[in-house]
Amino acid sequence: MSLQGDYDSQNIFAKIIRGEAPCYKVYEDDDVLAFLDLFPQSYGHTLVIPKKAAARNLLEIDADSLCQMTLAVQKVTRALVEELQPAGVQVAQFNGAPAGQTVFHIHMHIIPRHEGESLGIHASQKADPVELERLQARLVRRLNSLTA
Amino acid sequence: MSLQGDYDSQNIFAKIIRGEAPCYKVYEDDDVLAFLDLFPQSYGHTLVIPKKAAARNLLEIDADSLCQMTLAVQKVTRALVEELQPAGVQVAQFNGAPAGQTVFHIHMHIIPRHEGESLGIHASQKADPVELERLQARLVRRLNSLTA
Repeated sequence: MSLQGDYDSQNIFAKIIRGEAPCYKVYEDDDVLAFLDLFPQSYGHTLVIPKKAAARNLLEIDADSLCQMTLAVQKVTRALVEELQPAGVQVAQFNGAPAGQTVFHIHMHIIPRHEGESLGIHASQKADPVELERLQARLVRRLNSLTA
Repeated sequence: MSLQGDYDSQNIFAKIIRGEAPCYKVYEDDDVLAFLDLFPQSYGHTLVIPKKAAARNLLEIDADSLCQMTLAVQKVTRALVEELQPAGVQVAQFNGAPAGQTVFHIHMHIIPRHEGESLGIHASQKADPVELERLQARLVRRLNSLTA
Protein backbone atom coordinates (compact mmCIF):
# COMPACT_ATOMS: atom_id res chain seq x y z
CA MET A 1 0.00 0.00 0.00
CA SER A 2 1.39 3.37 -0.98
CA LEU A 3 0.85 4.82 2.50
CA GLN A 4 3.63 2.57 3.72
CA GLY A 5 7.25 2.44 2.64
CA ASP A 6 10.63 3.93 3.36
CA TYR A 7 11.47 7.61 3.17
CA ASP A 8 13.57 8.28 0.06
CA SER A 9 16.18 10.93 0.91
CA GLN A 10 16.65 11.64 -2.81
CA ASN A 11 13.12 13.00 -3.27
CA ILE A 12 13.01 16.50 -4.77
CA PHE A 13 11.85 18.25 -1.58
CA ALA A 14 14.66 16.67 0.45
CA LYS A 15 17.07 18.02 -2.17
CA ILE A 16 15.51 21.48 -1.92
CA ILE A 17 15.90 21.39 1.89
CA ARG A 18 19.56 20.45 1.54
CA GLY A 19 20.11 23.19 -1.04
CA GLU A 20 20.83 20.66 -3.79
CA ALA A 21 17.87 21.76 -5.90
CA PRO A 22 16.47 25.26 -6.46
CA CYS A 23 13.06 26.59 -5.51
CA TYR A 24 11.11 29.85 -5.53
CA LYS A 25 11.33 30.29 -1.77
CA VAL A 26 8.85 32.65 -0.13
CA TYR A 27 9.40 31.83 3.55
CA GLU A 28 11.84 29.87 5.69
CA ASP A 29 12.60 29.42 9.37
CA ASP A 30 14.31 26.70 11.43
CA ASP A 31 11.40 24.31 11.02
CA VAL A 32 9.74 24.95 7.68
CA LEU A 33 10.23 26.03 4.10
CA ALA A 34 7.59 27.55 1.81
CA PHE A 35 8.01 27.87 -1.95
CA LEU A 36 5.96 28.28 -5.11
CA ASP A 37 4.55 25.23 -6.87
CA LEU A 38 6.07 24.91 -10.36
CA PHE A 39 2.81 23.46 -11.70
CA PRO A 40 0.38 25.82 -10.01
CA GLN A 41 -3.29 25.00 -9.80
CA SER A 42 -3.89 28.73 -9.42
CA TYR A 43 -1.95 31.98 -9.20
CA GLY A 44 -0.18 31.92 -5.85
CA HIS A 45 -0.16 28.14 -5.32
CA THR A 46 2.43 27.62 -2.58
CA LEU A 47 3.80 24.55 -0.80
CA VAL A 48 4.88 24.32 2.83
CA ILE A 49 7.18 21.52 4.01
CA PRO A 50 8.82 20.59 7.32
CA LYS A 51 12.62 20.66 7.24
CA LYS A 52 13.47 18.36 10.13
CA ALA A 53 11.00 15.54 9.62
CA ALA A 54 11.92 12.68 7.29
CA ALA A 55 8.24 11.89 6.93
CA ARG A 56 6.43 10.72 3.83
CA ASN A 57 2.99 11.66 5.07
CA LEU A 58 0.66 12.62 7.90
CA LEU A 59 0.91 9.18 9.50
CA GLU A 60 4.66 9.55 10.02
CA ILE A 61 5.29 13.17 10.99
CA ASP A 62 6.09 14.08 14.62
CA ALA A 63 3.71 16.36 16.51
CA ASP A 64 6.06 19.35 16.72
CA SER A 65 6.89 19.35 13.01
CA LEU A 66 3.19 19.02 12.22
CA CYS A 67 2.29 22.03 14.37
CA GLN A 68 5.10 24.13 12.95
CA MET A 69 4.12 23.24 9.40
CA THR A 70 0.49 24.14 10.04
CA LEU A 71 1.37 27.44 11.71
CA ALA A 72 3.54 28.28 8.69
CA VAL A 73 0.62 27.47 6.41
CA GLN A 74 -1.44 29.98 8.35
CA LYS A 75 1.30 32.61 8.12
CA VAL A 76 1.78 32.17 4.37
CA THR A 77 -1.98 32.07 3.78
CA ARG A 78 -2.37 35.42 5.54
CA ALA A 79 0.33 36.88 3.29
CA LEU A 80 -1.25 35.39 0.15
CA VAL A 81 -4.64 36.80 1.11
CA GLU A 82 -3.27 40.27 1.79
CA GLU A 83 -1.11 40.35 -1.31
CA LEU A 84 -3.33 38.64 -3.89
CA GLN A 85 -6.81 39.28 -2.47
CA PRO A 86 -8.24 35.94 -3.61
CA ALA A 87 -11.93 35.08 -3.26
CA GLY A 88 -11.01 32.07 -1.14
CA VAL A 89 -8.18 29.72 -0.24
CA GLN A 90 -8.00 25.93 -0.31
CA VAL A 91 -5.51 24.11 1.88
CA ALA A 92 -4.82 20.48 1.01
CA GLN A 93 -2.53 17.69 2.09
CA PHE A 94 -2.40 14.40 0.16
CA ASN A 95 -1.30 11.04 1.52
CA GLY A 96 -0.45 8.29 -0.93
CA ALA A 97 -0.40 8.33 -4.73
CA PRO A 98 -4.09 7.34 -5.01
CA ALA A 99 -4.89 10.55 -3.07
CA GLY A 100 -2.87 12.69 -5.46
CA GLN A 101 0.51 12.72 -3.69
CA THR A 102 3.42 12.93 -6.15
CA VAL A 103 6.37 13.83 -3.90
CA PHE A 104 6.85 11.63 -0.86
CA HIS A 105 7.99 14.22 1.63
CA ILE A 106 4.93 15.52 3.50
CA HIS A 107 3.74 18.90 2.23
CA MET A 108 0.72 21.15 2.41
CA HIS A 109 -0.72 22.95 -0.59
CA ILE A 110 -2.05 26.50 -0.26
CA ILE A 111 -4.20 27.23 -3.30
CA PRO A 112 -5.75 30.69 -3.59
CA ARG A 113 -9.05 30.67 -5.44
CA HIS A 114 -9.71 33.65 -7.65
CA GLU A 115 -13.07 34.87 -8.95
CA GLY A 116 -14.25 33.07 -12.08
CA GLU A 117 -11.82 30.15 -11.76
CA SER A 118 -12.92 26.54 -11.60
CA LEU A 119 -12.17 24.45 -8.54
CA GLY A 120 -10.21 21.83 -10.48
CA ILE A 121 -7.71 19.99 -8.37
CA HIS A 122 -5.17 18.90 -10.99
CA ALA A 123 -2.13 20.89 -12.06
CA SER A 124 -2.33 22.45 -15.48
CA GLN A 125 1.09 23.32 -16.86
CA LYS A 126 4.47 24.55 -15.77
CA ALA A 127 4.48 28.19 -14.74
CA ASP A 128 6.49 30.89 -16.52
CA PRO A 129 9.76 31.41 -14.58
CA VAL A 130 9.57 35.19 -14.98
CA GLU A 131 6.08 35.18 -13.53
CA LEU A 132 7.20 32.97 -10.64
CA GLU A 133 10.05 35.34 -9.83
CA ARG A 134 7.70 38.31 -9.80
CA LEU A 135 5.25 36.50 -7.56
CA GLN A 136 8.04 35.32 -5.28
CA ALA A 137 9.23 38.91 -4.80
CA ARG A 138 5.72 40.11 -3.93
CA LEU A 139 5.19 37.36 -1.36
CA VAL A 140 8.61 37.68 0.25
CA ARG A 141 8.02 41.40 0.69
CA ARG A 142 4.56 40.81 2.12
CA LEU A 143 5.74 38.09 4.52
CA ASN A 144 8.57 40.30 5.73
CA SER A 145 6.11 43.09 6.46
CA LEU A 146 3.77 40.71 8.34
CA THR A 147 6.46 39.10 10.48
CA ALA A 148 8.54 42.24 11.08
CA MET B 1 -15.23 39.32 0.35
CA SER B 2 -16.35 36.06 1.87
CA LEU B 3 -13.11 35.60 3.79
CA GLN B 4 -14.17 38.49 5.98
CA GLY B 5 -17.23 38.79 8.16
CA ASP B 6 -18.51 38.08 11.63
CA TYR B 7 -18.63 34.66 13.22
CA ASP B 8 -22.24 33.43 13.32
CA SER B 9 -22.80 31.55 16.59
CA GLN B 10 -25.88 29.88 15.07
CA ASN B 11 -23.90 27.94 12.45
CA ILE B 12 -24.49 24.19 12.54
CA PHE B 13 -21.06 23.29 13.91
CA ALA B 14 -21.42 25.76 16.78
CA LYS B 15 -24.75 24.08 17.57
CA ILE B 16 -23.09 20.66 17.49
CA ILE B 17 -20.38 21.86 19.89
CA ARG B 18 -23.04 23.18 22.29
CA GLY B 19 -24.99 19.92 22.05
CA GLU B 20 -27.92 21.65 20.34
CA ALA B 21 -27.59 19.57 17.18
CA PRO B 22 -26.68 15.89 16.78
CA CYS B 23 -23.66 14.44 15.05
CA TYR B 24 -22.03 11.06 14.46
CA LYS B 25 -19.17 11.74 16.85
CA VAL B 26 -16.05 9.62 16.51
CA TYR B 27 -13.64 11.54 18.75
CA GLU B 28 -13.74 14.35 21.31
CA ASP B 29 -11.39 15.95 23.81
CA ASP B 30 -11.23 19.36 25.52
CA ASP B 31 -10.12 21.09 22.34
CA VAL B 32 -11.60 19.30 19.36
CA LEU B 33 -14.52 17.31 18.06
CA ALA B 34 -14.48 14.85 15.15
CA PHE B 35 -17.63 13.54 13.47
CA LEU B 36 -18.77 11.93 10.24
CA ASP B 37 -19.71 14.12 7.28
CA LEU B 38 -23.40 13.65 6.41
CA PHE B 39 -22.64 14.16 2.72
CA PRO B 40 -19.51 12.04 2.45
CA GLN B 41 -17.22 12.35 -0.54
CA SER B 42 -16.02 8.85 0.30
CA TYR B 43 -16.58 6.11 2.85
CA GLY B 44 -15.07 7.39 6.10
CA HIS B 45 -15.21 11.13 5.31
CA THR B 46 -14.74 12.78 8.71
CA LEU B 47 -14.63 16.39 9.90
CA VAL B 48 -12.50 17.80 12.71
CA ILE B 49 -13.39 21.12 14.35
CA PRO B 50 -11.94 23.19 17.20
CA LYS B 51 -14.33 23.64 20.14
CA LYS B 52 -12.92 26.77 21.76
CA ALA B 53 -12.21 28.95 18.74
CA ALA B 54 -15.01 31.12 17.35
CA ALA B 55 -13.14 31.24 14.05
CA ARG B 56 -14.61 31.20 10.56
CA ASN B 57 -11.42 30.17 8.85
CA LEU B 58 -7.64 29.74 8.89
CA LEU B 59 -7.06 33.49 9.01
CA GLU B 60 -8.89 33.82 12.32
CA ILE B 61 -8.00 30.77 14.40
CA ASP B 62 -5.54 31.06 17.30
CA ALA B 63 -2.29 29.10 17.16
CA ASP B 64 -3.12 26.67 19.96
CA SER B 65 -6.51 25.72 18.53
CA LEU B 66 -4.92 25.28 15.10
CA CYS B 67 -2.26 22.91 16.47
CA GLN B 68 -4.79 20.92 18.47
CA MET B 69 -7.08 20.60 15.46
CA THR B 70 -4.23 19.41 13.25
CA LEU B 71 -3.00 16.88 15.82
CA ALA B 72 -6.55 15.54 16.07
CA VAL B 73 -6.67 15.23 12.28
CA GLN B 74 -3.52 13.11 12.50
CA LYS B 75 -5.01 10.95 15.25
CA VAL B 76 -8.27 10.37 13.40
CA THR B 77 -6.46 9.76 10.12
CA ARG B 78 -4.37 7.04 11.75
CA ALA B 79 -7.56 5.39 13.01
CA LEU B 80 -9.25 5.68 9.61
CA VAL B 81 -6.23 4.12 7.90
CA GLU B 82 -6.03 1.24 10.35
CA GLU B 83 -9.76 0.59 10.32
CA LEU B 84 -10.66 1.14 6.66
CA GLN B 85 -7.33 0.44 4.93
CA PRO B 86 -7.83 3.08 2.21
CA ALA B 87 -5.40 3.46 -0.69
CA GLY B 88 -4.74 7.06 0.34
CA VAL B 89 -6.13 9.96 2.37
CA GLN B 90 -6.83 13.55 1.38
CA VAL B 91 -6.91 16.26 4.02
CA ALA B 92 -8.53 19.56 3.03
CA GLN B 93 -9.50 22.83 4.62
CA PHE B 94 -11.55 25.42 2.71
CA ASN B 95 -11.63 29.14 3.37
CA GLY B 96 -14.46 31.16 1.84
CA ALA B 97 -17.45 30.05 -0.23
CA PRO B 98 -15.52 30.37 -3.53
CA ALA B 99 -13.07 27.78 -2.15
CA GLY B 100 -15.86 25.35 -1.29
CA GLN B 101 -16.55 26.32 2.34
CA THR B 102 -20.20 25.82 3.28
CA VAL B 103 -20.15 26.03 7.10
CA PHE B 104 -18.38 29.05 8.53
CA HIS B 105 -16.76 27.47 11.56
CA ILE B 106 -13.26 26.35 10.60
CA HIS B 107 -13.03 22.62 9.92
CA MET B 108 -10.73 20.10 8.33
CA HIS B 109 -11.92 17.33 6.03
CA ILE B 110 -10.36 13.87 6.21
CA ILE B 111 -11.29 12.00 3.04
CA PRO B 112 -10.08 8.41 2.67
CA ARG B 113 -9.49 7.41 -0.94
CA HIS B 114 -10.38 3.86 -1.83
CA GLU B 115 -9.16 1.86 -4.82
CA GLY B 116 -11.12 2.49 -8.00
CA GLU B 117 -12.79 5.68 -6.78
CA SER B 118 -12.49 8.99 -8.58
CA LEU B 119 -10.86 11.96 -6.85
CA GLY B 120 -13.94 14.15 -7.19
CA ILE B 121 -14.14 16.85 -4.59
CA HIS B 122 -17.90 17.46 -4.46
CA ALA B 123 -20.27 15.73 -2.11
CA SER B 124 -22.60 13.25 -3.69
CA GLN B 125 -25.64 12.57 -1.55
CA LYS B 126 -26.69 12.21 2.03
CA ALA B 127 -25.37 9.05 3.66
CA ASP B 128 -27.60 6.27 5.00
CA PRO B 129 -28.02 6.80 8.78
CA VAL B 130 -27.68 3.08 9.49
CA GLU B 131 -24.42 3.01 7.57
CA LEU B 132 -23.18 6.09 9.44
CA GLU B 133 -23.95 4.49 12.79
CA ARG B 134 -22.07 1.34 11.83
CA LEU B 135 -19.08 3.34 10.65
CA GLN B 136 -19.17 5.50 13.78
CA ALA B 137 -19.03 2.41 15.99
CA ARG B 138 -16.03 1.03 14.09
CA LEU B 139 -14.09 4.30 14.32
CA VAL B 140 -14.89 4.93 17.97
CA ARG B 141 -13.66 1.43 18.81
CA ARG B 142 -10.50 1.92 16.76
CA LEU B 143 -9.75 5.34 18.26
CA ASN B 144 -10.23 3.98 21.75
CA SER B 145 -7.77 1.20 21.04
CA LEU B 146 -5.21 3.65 19.62
CA THR B 147 -5.43 6.14 22.47
CA ALA B 148 -5.76 3.60 25.28
